[in-house]
Amino acid sequence: YRYDIIEGENEIGVTTGLAWTIVGGDTLFIETTCVPGTGRLVLTGQLGEVMQESAKAGISYIRSIADKLGIQEDFYKTQDLHIHIPEGATPKDGPSAGVTMCTAIISTLTNKPVRKNVAMTGEITLRGKVLPVGGIREKVLAAYRAGITKILLPADNERDIDDIPANVRKKIEFVLIKTVDDALEHALVK
Amino acid sequence: YRYDIIEGENEIGVTTGLAWTIVGGDTLFIETTCVPGTGRLVLTGQLGEVMQESAKAGISYIRSIADKLGIQEDFYKTQDLHIHIPEGATPKDGPSAGVTMCTAIISTLTNKPVRKNVAMTGEITLRGKVLPVGGIREKVLAAYRAGITKILLPADNERDIDDIPANVRKKIEFVLIKTVDDALEHALVK
Amino acid sequence: YRYDIIEGENEIGVTTGLAWTIVGGDTLFIETTCVPGTGRLVLTGQLGEVMQESAKAGISYIRSIADKLGIQEDFYKTQDLHIHIPEGATPKDGPSAGVTMCTAIISTLTNKPVRKNVAMTGEITLRGKVLPVGGIREKVLAAYRAGITKILLPADNERDIDDIPANVRKKIEFVLIKTVDDALEHALVK
Amino acid sequence: YRYDIIEGENEIGVTTGLAWTIVGGDTLFIETTCVPGTGRLVLTGQLGEVMQESAKAGISYIRSIADKLGIQEDFYKTQDLHIHIPEGATPKDGPSAGVTMCTAIISTLTNKPVRKNVAMTGEITLRGKVLPVGGIREKVLAAYRAGITKILLPADNERDIDDIPANVRKKIEFVLIKTVDDALEHALVK
Amino acid sequence: YRYDIIEGENEIGVTTGLAWTIVGGDTLFIETTCVPGTGRLVLTGQLGEVMQESAKAGISYIRSIADKLGIQEDFYKTQDLHIHIPEGATPKDGPSAGVTMCTAIISTLTNKPVRKNVAMTGEITLRGKVLPVGGIREKVLAAYRAGITKILLPADNERDIDDIPANVRKKIEFVLIKTVDDALEHALVK
Amino acid sequence: YRYDIIEGENEIGVTTGLAWTIVGGDTLFIETTCVPGTGRLVLTGQLGEVMQESAKAGISYIRSIADKLGIQEDFYKTQDLHIHIPEGATPKDGPSAGVTMCTAIISTLTNKPVRKNVAMTGEITLRGKVLPVGGIREKVLAAYRAGITKILLPADNERDIDDIPANVRKKIEFVLIKTVDDALEHALVK
Ligand SMILES: [Ca+2]
Ligand SMILES: [Ca+2]
Ligand SMILES: [Ca+2]
Ligand SMILES: [Ca+2]
Ligand SMILES: [Ca+2]
Ligand SMILES: [Ca+2]
Ligand SMILES: [Ca+2]
Ligand SMILES: [Ca+2]
Ligand SMILES: [Ca+2]
Ligand SMILES: [Ca+2]
Ligand SMILES: [Ca+2]
Ligand SMILES: [Ca+2]
Repeated sequence: YRYDIIEGENEIGVTTGLAWTIVGGDTLFIETTCVPGTGRLVLTGQLGEVMQESAKAGISYIRSIADKLGIQEDFYKTQDLHIHIPEGATPKDGPSAGVTMCTAIISTLTNKPVRKNVAMTGEITLRGKVLPVGGIREKVLAAYRAGITKILLPADNERDIDDIPANVRKKIEFVLIKTVDDALEHALVK
Repeated sequence: YRYDIIEGENEIGVTTGLAWTIVGGDTLFIETTCVPGTGRLVLTGQLGEVMQESAKAGISYIRSIADKLGIQEDFYKTQDLHIHIPEGATPKDGPSAGVTMCTAIISTLTNKPVRKNVAMTGEITLRGKVLPVGGIREKVLAAYRAGITKILLPADNERDIDDIPANVRKKIEFVLIKTVDDALEHALVK
Repeated sequence: YRYDIIEGENEIGVTTGLAWTIVGGDTLFIETTCVPGTGRLVLTGQLGEVMQESAKAGISYIRSIADKLGIQEDFYKTQDLHIHIPEGATPKDGPSAGVTMCTAIISTLTNKPVRKNVAMTGEITLRGKVLPVGGIREKVLAAYRAGITKILLPADNERDIDDIPANVRKKIEFVLIKTVDDALEHALVK
Repeated sequence: YRYDIIEGENEIGVTTGLAWTIVGGDTLFIETTCVPGTGRLVLTGQLGEVMQESAKAGISYIRSIADKLGIQEDFYKTQDLHIHIPEGATPKDGPSAGVTMCTAIISTLTNKPVRKNVAMTGEITLRGKVLPVGGIREKVLAAYRAGITKILLPADNERDIDDIPANVRKKIEFVLIKTVDDALEHALVK
Repeated sequence: YRYDIIEGENEIGVTTGLAWTIVGGDTLFIETTCVPGTGRLVLTGQLGEVMQESAKAGISYIRSIADKLGIQEDFYKTQDLHIHIPEGATPKDGPSAGVTMCTAIISTLTNKPVRKNVAMTGEITLRGKVLPVGGIREKVLAAYRAGITKILLPADNERDIDDIPANVRKKIEFVLIKTVDDALEHALVK
Repeated sequence: YRYDIIEGENEIGVTTGLAWTIVGGDTLFIETTCVPGTGRLVLTGQLGEVMQESAKAGISYIRSIADKLGIQEDFYKTQDLHIHIPEGATPKDGPSAGVTMCTAIISTLTNKPVRKNVAMTGEITLRGKVLPVGGIREKVLAAYRAGITKILLPADNERDIDDIPANVRKKIEFVLIKTVDDALEHALVK
């Protein structure tokens, strides 16, 4: 389907993640919205328990550095946040979309668009560190097929870059990230 | 039963969706009401988890563009919204009623009637995009039997129209939609 | 047991429904009360998930036409509503008591008694339409045994009347209903 | 154990019920307390789902006739009600303690003691009717062994009295009850 | 481990209970704290459903006699109560710690220390009665090994004292209790 | 992965714990944050039931000595507390991280950094006592591999130190702790 092809303008609140499934790698889009509300968090798209916890860790991290990000500290009680990952019938799980979800939420809360050509993967911790994840080779190939030109990878996954076919490797810019801050640096439009 | 035949006046809050079951395609009616309340959402008619998430994604999308639709932004705390799909004993699931539920809710919230002769199918995302779904052939045949004359299909399902028998194809007007906006354009009475 | 025999005065908040079980048809009494409260809904009598959803659809329908029925619109937050179906140890399920529950609730909220000689069956939708249900023959026989003289059936069940033994058929008045409104017309004392 | 022997003064909020178990009949004590609170209902003693529903039906019935009973109508939000049935490790279920629980709660809310020599059994409906229950013979024998001298039975269980051994039958006074009101008449100290 | 040896000062909010497990008797410590809060009850230490109900019955009993105990009647909404039983990985259940939990909570709420040399066992009812429990022999032996010198037993367990080895029996003072009041009399420091 | 190597500055709210898994010992980092909120507690990182109860016991202990620790007594309703343990996909359970979680929370609430070279293990009770745990040998070896130089062990685990290889034992300083207070003494930067 054309849906998987990256196209169109940079958008606010939407990031491109990388999934690793039984049938190979795949791109997935994290969509977020934030509207006046009472502080509810809604997670849809058949996210498993680990993925939901990952989203919550990201939100707590954001709340702990709200000041620095220029986000109103009380958004947790004046805004409703919704994170959705199409395709809604496909179960998704694991911690590897942590940095992708966290970046999407920050984009929504700061109104800064996300660069359309960037994809990313990585578990995050409550301190905003980025931890290594699996399936780098398959994920990168899927991103390549979808038209991505820049991929943010956890620094601890550096050695996995060697496994990527040379023809793909030279068409994609790899950025090794250690923190959520590094991801924002490369993913958000300034 | 006569119940499945489309008849009567255009109504507010009711849309016709298309389901794909083991025994073939079927039409289903999405009924919505909105009454003064405290912001509760009630989903009945044995909707599965994916379908419920789909309804929630639709509502968040609507909230994010409430202004543009002319809907009061605080309906999420001053109105109770109920989505029901008869026949209440039949389990229903999947994301393909996304655009149908979203259109029904917008009809209720804006008091604009839905055209009785229109049916639709398609997953929606949090940004209001319409994604392709399965079972187009069976769904269209069911809509045809029920007296529908115009069907809204996801743009990415364009090639599936070829599989529909020619005699049916020439009696139904197909509209390819990319967004919820496209669906509203064709389904709501202006 | 004598309990199943219909007797006594017309009562407010109590209707007679018809159930279809493995061992044949049965009458069941829907009891409702409404007292000053905080808008809680209590459903007891071992009602299954579909039956509970059916009650909720009925309540939303009532709320959407509260004005027309002369019911205070804010009852959903100033009254507690309890629906109970004896015999409390017998599991009950299915959508066919929809119109019966809806009529009992309206009786309670409007203080209008229900005619003791009337029984009814039918699924309802959020718009107050009455849909056909199964087991008409067995249900009618049970109502007959219990002393019922008038039965309200979904219009789409008309053809099922032929299956009822002639001796029973001539002792009972059948009314075909298309909407909750039709049911109220025949069941409530004016 | 001596615990099962009925002894001591008439108490407020405690009634004697009759259970029918695999190993025969047994007496059970319904204990209730009511303290200033926020309207919480606590049910302990391993009560099954049907028994909990039975307690809730009793409470709704009491609320609907609070005025007549001289109970403050707003107790549902100013008092916390606790119903406990020792022996806490034994699972208990079924609707037959309905009238017993209802009587205990009314005793607590009206501060009227319950006669120590009275035991009772019977399902109740939301209108305060008493429906027949099973195991009358075994229940009566257990009450007799525990020292009970007066037993309240559902009127529809009248024929079951014949099955009770004559020597027991003549030592116990049986009262056939049709309503909760009948039970209060015989169980509460005036 | 030394942990099971009773030693140190009398403490507020801590009582010694007696458990009966597959591998014999064991002592267990009930720890309670009460801090300014909103009336939450937290139960930890892998307490089973019956044990949790037992704690709740104890709290309702305490609330019903708060006045007499000199406890502020509104503690249920101004204090948070936590009951914890180490060792946290071992599942615990049953009603026999009722009097032990109830005594610990009263100690916390009244600021009266519990005598270190006392252990106790017994189910409690909502009226504060103490009911007999099983495993007396094994429980007493475990208490003896832990250095306990005084054990409170339900009056209805009197005959079980005969089964305790004579050498143990003469080193421990047994007190037969009928009510929570009896337990407080012997366990709390005046 | 480099992630398991202890490095960097002393941090606030982060402690190093020791886990004992099927494949040997492992270090785990307890991360905590505390932000203005409404008193919510969020636990992520696939913590099992026992571990969650352990965290709650720690928090109640902290609340009971808030005054002594210089923590605002009302943090339970003005702050949201999040405890997260990477690696988020790995299930974790058991009570042995009790002292580690408790120390991390106190660090967050008092703004005192935790010494980077210290790791610890031990169940805690509601009174702040530290109880012995299993797997000491494997845990110590894992801490050693991660670069830890000082380990806090429950006093009742003293004899387990003998099982640690001599070469490791002489490179690590062991501190036997009896209470949370002892842990704070050695883990927090003064
Ligand atoms: Ca895809
Ligand atoms: Ca799921
Ligand atoms: Ca249909
Ligand atoms: Ca279901
Ligand atoms: Ca019946
Ligand atoms: Ca059930
Ligand atoms: Ca008994
Ligand atoms: Ca249970
Ligand atoms: Ca022990
Ligand atoms: Ca458990
Ligand atoms: Ca590790
Ligand atoms: Ca889990």
